[in-house]
Amino acid sequence: MTSPNPDWKPGQKIEAPGGDLISFSPAEKDVASIYKFLIGSVVPRPIAFVSTISKDGVSNLAPFSFFNALSSNPPCVMISISARPGGEYKDTLRNIEETKEFVVNSANRWLLEPLVHCAAEYPYGVSEFEKAGLTAIASEKVKPQRVKESAVQLECELYQTVKIGDGSPGSSTLVIGKIVMFHVLDRIYQDGKINLEELKPIARLGGVNYCSVGEIFGIPIPKV
Amino acid sequence: MTSPNPDWKPGQKIEAPGGDLISFSPAEKDVASIYKFLIGSVVPRPIAFVSTISKDGVSNLAPFSFFNALSSNPPCVMISISARPGGEYKDTLRNIEETKEFVVNSANRWLLEPLVHCAAEYPYGVSEFEKAGLTAIASEKVKPQRVKESAVQLECELYQTVKIGDGSPGSSTLVIGKIVMFHVLDRIYQDGKINLEELKPIARLGGVNYCSVGEIFGIPIPKV
Repeated sequence: MTSPNPDWKPGQKIEAPGGDLISFSPAEKDVASIYKFLIGSVVPRPIAFVSTISKDGVSNLAPFSFFNALSSNPPCVMISISARPGGEYKDTLRNIEETKEFVVNSANRWLLEPLVHCAAEYPYGVSEFEKAGLTAIASEKVKPQRVKESAVQLECELYQTVKIGDGSPGSSTLVIGKIVMFHVLDRIYQDGKINLEELKPIARLGGVNYCSVGEIFGIPIPKV
Repeated sequence: MTSPNPDWKPGQKIEAPGGDLISFSPAEKDVASIYKFLIGSVVPRPIAFVSTISKDGVSNLAPFSFFNALSSNPPCVMISISARPGGEYKDTLRNIEETKEFVVNSANRWLLEPLVHCAAEYPYGVSEFEKAGLTAIASEKVKPQRVKESAVQLECELYQTVKIGDGSPGSSTLVIGKIVMFHVLDRIYQDGKINLEELKPIARLGGVNYCSVGEIFGIPIPKV
């Protein structure tokens, strides 16, 4: 499909759903309500399936959807890791702070169940690779292993972290990673293009929900 | 739908597409190829339709898909703004650096065409609100106006910027905004939940492509 409203002309008013607005400041809601609002309204979010290793050599694997690409020169991605009730951070952050390395593995449709399983609260020291039945393969430039079943694997070195908030629940640590090695299934990367039909990306919505890509609209940016 | 593979059991090996991996370091590709790889593989990306105002009072409106939520305490979002060929940054960044404020308006299906139109390279000083036929309404706590046709509007104050790279093309400035006021259509936010069917979010893929949400899978995180 080329466009949801192919007859639209520049400057033309559109029909948008009407109704009253609900307006509130952050001080009027608790942190859990704000979190729920954000994960329900900033959607769909791409998912980083992040593998790390502790300084003692124990692997960890966990999904993050406060994730995106940031830049191409150098190539960087970010994940934001939230503090839990109690102020504790996830093992992923502890490992990244210890070793300064991580791998972003892609979230493809065929591995959705094991990926969600890796969001479970296993104790520190348990390898989610085993618990989820996924295959760990050695990386080329970093110590954390990659997920063989992921179609894209991005080996990252820590570029910078940014603390957001005071460390209480709902605060986050934004982790910026510089990609030092790219891996992609050859059937998915042809003539310099990623094949979306083969990639079958899965994204995060609000609540307990995940989604696939639906209708696709190709709309070039106009020249003016 | 509850799951693409409802019979999967923890620890069970999955069937994943096989084939060889293509592997390369950033030094082996040019910046444009790396950009293309990232926008094709980190998908689908949520879209921030960002309104800003210059110190001289000229409004600007542009879409960004290196965008996500970061934290809920304080509530923060990020957009990453890339340097263009020549090293120039977009008007959005100039305005945010001047006024320390911006608004993230949601990208809903009904406003996709005007949103893409606002990605056009209008000269500094042109208001994309007019060019796209969108309605500017006053914000409550910040100077940049909101997009009336967007279902969700997040008024933001600049929290921090992070420079990534040396400013040459493909480098970025990561902009972190603290949300100081939330607005949402009342038909979309009921009982503390965002109604996805009413929100009709549009996300960004690679190339010139955008997408809607497809199949939805509800999979609770297991207790272990």
